Amino acid sequence: MKKTIARSVLAVLALSVATAASAQVKPEDQIKFRQAGYRFMSWNMGKIKGNLEGTYNKDQVAAAANAIAGIANSGMGALYGPGTDKAIGSVKTRVKPEFFKEGENVGKLAREFNAAAGDLAKVAAGGDAAAVKTAFGKLGESCKACHDKYREED
Amino acid sequence: MKKTIARSVLAVLALSVATAASAQVKPEDQIKFRQAGYRFMSWNMGKIKGNLEGTYNKDQVAAAANAIAGIANSGMGALYGPGTDKAIGSVKTRVKPEFFKEGENVGKLAREFNAAAGDLAKVAAGGDAAAVKTAFGKLGESCKACHDKYREED
Repeated sequence: MKKTIARSVLAVLALSVATAASAQVKPEDQIKFRQAGYRFMSWNMGKIKGNLEGTYNKDQVAAAANAIAGIANSGMGALYGPGTDKAIGSVKTRVKPEFFKEGENVGKLAREFNAAAGDLAKVAAGGDAAAVKTAFGKLGESCKACHDKYREED
Repeated sequence: MKKTIARSVLAVLALSVATAASAQVKPEDQIKFRQAGYRFMSWNMGKIKGNLEGTYNKDQVAAAANAIAGIANSGMGALYGPGTDKAIGSVKTRVKPEFFKEGENVGKLAREFNAAAGDLAKVAAGGDAAAVKTAFGKLGESCKACHDKYREED
């Protein structure tokens, strides 16, 4: 019970932080910033994949995982503010309308993604390639869970 | 002397990691990835600035600083591979030709930037706003040092 209350308080705090942060950023910039975050994560996911399939470089994997964890846990929810649900001029977005209507599920997926990114960074610091492979797979699944439901196909 | 040799070995290692990583990524994608990294860092710099000028939220600042440090230290040098010195089709770049000719100075600026980003993340975790302000200022200076010398004006 205490845990539930604490979690609710945290959720409310997270939301107010998100609101304060998004208030200062124009909707078109919010879209650009969130896309930049995903794009930079995808480069780092690619590097980790390359390491798992080829020669494993512990430092490169750890650095890539840190970048992903840092981005994932930076409060990207603030980049989905009002007006960012559709294209603004030449700034396109592939986010589906459902994303903005299913806050509870989106929040759940986001928390799973953040946790998976944090886990990967922890495991990558240890340098055990097999453990990294497992954590990387879990992170990939959490990306896919959101993409499948809330991202338009190319 | 030992230190100098160790540093040279590290530099060579860093270069080979960079080469291996950039070999897998198309030049136009290297440009897009590096721009994504800088853009996402700029969002987080903006958040920290907002916190320092307004209400200070320790968690938001720490998260923003972690994102910046993760990106800065992810091996972005690999995103300046051959063919990324000028526009590729619609993918523009503001990097100046000198960037690719002055490796030693670029390396020095990059190391200063990476260190400043790491320092800010450490200080931000502590939550002392005055210390964060100093570390943030130093990071800003290290961004500017490179922009002034190697980035075309808008």
